[in-house]
Amino acid sequence: MSKPDSPYAITLADVTAAADRIASHVWRTPAINSDALQELTGRTVVLKCESMQRTGSFKIRGATNAVRSILEADAPRGVVTHSSGNHALALATAAAERSMPAHVVMPENASPSKRAAVVRAGAHVVTCGNSGAEREAMAAEVQARTGATMVPPFDHPWVMAGQGTIALEILEQIPNAGTLVIPVGGGGMLAGMAIAARALRPDIRIIGAEPELAGDAAESKRTGRRAPQRPPVTIADGLRTSLGELTFPVIRDLVDDIALVSEDEIIAAMRIIFTRAQLVIEPSAAVGVAAILAGRTGGNMNAPTVCVLCGGNVDLMHLPWSALPA
Amino acid sequence: MSKPDSPYAITLADVTAAADRIASHVWRTPAINSDALQELTGRTVVLKCESMQRTGSFKIRGATNAVRSILEADAPRGVVTHSSGNHALALATAAAERSMPAHVVMPENASPSKRAAVVRAGAHVVTCGNSGAEREAMAAEVQARTGATMVPPFDHPWVMAGQGTIALEILEQIPNAGTLVIPVGGGGMLAGMAIAARALRPDIRIIGAEPELAGDAAESKRTGRRAPQRPPVTIADGLRTSLGELTFPVIRDLVDDIALVSEDEIIAAMRIIFTRAQLVIEPSAAVGVAAILAGRTGGNMNAPTVCVLCGGNVDLMHLPWSALPA
Repeated sequence: MSKPDSPYAITLADVTAAADRIASHVWRTPAINSDALQELTGRTVVLKCESMQRTGSFKIRGATNAVRSILEADAPRGVVTHSSGNHALALATAAAERSMPAHVVMPENASPSKRAAVVRAGAHVVTCGNSGAEREAMAAEVQARTGATMVPPFDHPWVMAGQGTIALEILEQIPNAGTLVIPVGGGGMLAGMAIAARALRPDIRIIGAEPELAGDAAESKRTGRRAPQRPPVTIADGLRTSLGELTFPVIRDLVDDIALVSEDEIIAAMRIIFTRAQLVIEPSAAVGVAAILAGRTGGNMNAPTVCVLCGGNVDLMHLPWSALPA
Repeated sequence: MSKPDSPYAITLADVTAAADRIASHVWRTPAINSDALQELTGRTVVLKCESMQRTGSFKIRGATNAVRSILEADAPRGVVTHSSGNHALALATAAAERSMPAHVVMPENASPSKRAAVVRAGAHVVTCGNSGAEREAMAAEVQARTGATMVPPFDHPWVMAGQGTIALEILEQIPNAGTLVIPVGGGGMLAGMAIAARALRPDIRIIGAEPELAGDAAESKRTGRRAPQRPPVTIADGLRTSLGELTFPVIRDLVDDIALVSEDEIIAAMRIIFTRAQLVIEPSAAVGVAAILAGRTGGNMNAPTVCVLCGGNVDLMHLPWSALPA
């Protein structure tokens, strides 16, 4: 893991090691040049489709890197995490593949379909209260009881390094990428990708994209101090968490800017991706697209803007717009 | 157009000429290697995403080739067609781009949203009765009155040659393609692609995919005689037409087989594409996927199977399944 002389939790070497470790367990997702977004923005926009990733989100990268990093002696006691979303399914899947038990603490208000998917993937689900504090307390209790290794959703070197592998793939797929637009919740993906991309391409522009209603990353970057978690109100349910102790310093130092978008902009962008780019995405994945459409990501008009579509797990029976444009 | 010594309406040269003619007006669509379908079938399955094509379907290729083939002297009188679907929008769009009038005969029962899209694209919409005979009669009347050039939805050399360009792109994108799986309604796409693919790769396997409830192509191929149109009952509304006089001989001679799929198989395949491949497609585009999932497309397990997703214009508020799997 991180070298003593590095100011951050991980280095490029951790990300490249993660890429080797997870290569045969995760998918190399397509990077699609979107003619529709080019028409709308005048820019070359490439969509990195982690929405098509195994388990439906990028989270399988960090989860697999964590599961595969655990020592043989610790493996039988399994892993534990708290998550109501994509990280839970990813960790359950990665653990099952190494035949390790997985304990997933999920709040009472988690969606029944997500809970069922986690159970189907073979995890033991433990129900807890809905607050972040209750979730963390229950996860700690399960860890103490089972001796399982804690794999938190973002603030861990293994997880950050795994998510960072997205940047390695992008730079192979689009060597002349000018700007990376990356949704930010807890910051595991943004920090991991920033470590790798900044090391390989010091000149690249790195923009986090965040809902206004969950704008703690923008605030943290502006004030230089990690802002607290906000009430979970944004539709982008994957981005409701605040930055972590390990992700914040990377984002503070290596990310150029955080672009904020409104809820209406997120929904409009999601609809455009469904109806013009013909891709299924979840609301969190629309946040970067919304920032690009709003002209808030900047950068050179002539170099491709690459937007990470972070996940595609969405309830298709309840899309957040009431009717399609005629 | 076709050479005197060719038994078919078009040749490879017509398709390559069409490719040059339409290059700057249509999009080169992505060919996506689907890990999810590989997991389900054990085969390498590549999805050629005409669902992401301009106007949401491959029809813009044939329409543009037709519009761009009309002589300067005839251009001011415009084009006319009858179609309730993707061809109508494609022709309206292609004509508008050459500043030509477009007359589109649509049946009374065409969806209001499709009608509105055609009007927005600048076409004059003429309403007629719902039967094929009424549509053709009205289109002939409009043609007589306006002197517009008729551009039928599939049974025309210009249209067939334009649709055939999909095969050229696929063979550039996946040079080792083993099998092409192509939905068939009137057969413009299947015949056009067969002309090009068979000429360039005599050994390639070419499979049409058709709903059982609109199985006239399979029947025509079996009997050697063009079977009549069936009642329009399949959910795959783009495939309800019967083969044309020009498309049938090509399909009879150059296509290896027609794979039939049930309505349940179409809906299940569509759901898999939405929830596992994270792509938005219309029911007609699920027909080829259903044939592959059912194991009816055959071919070498080791060479990629390429499936054309022909369109992505679907009413997202009324997807044909009642609930997602938990």
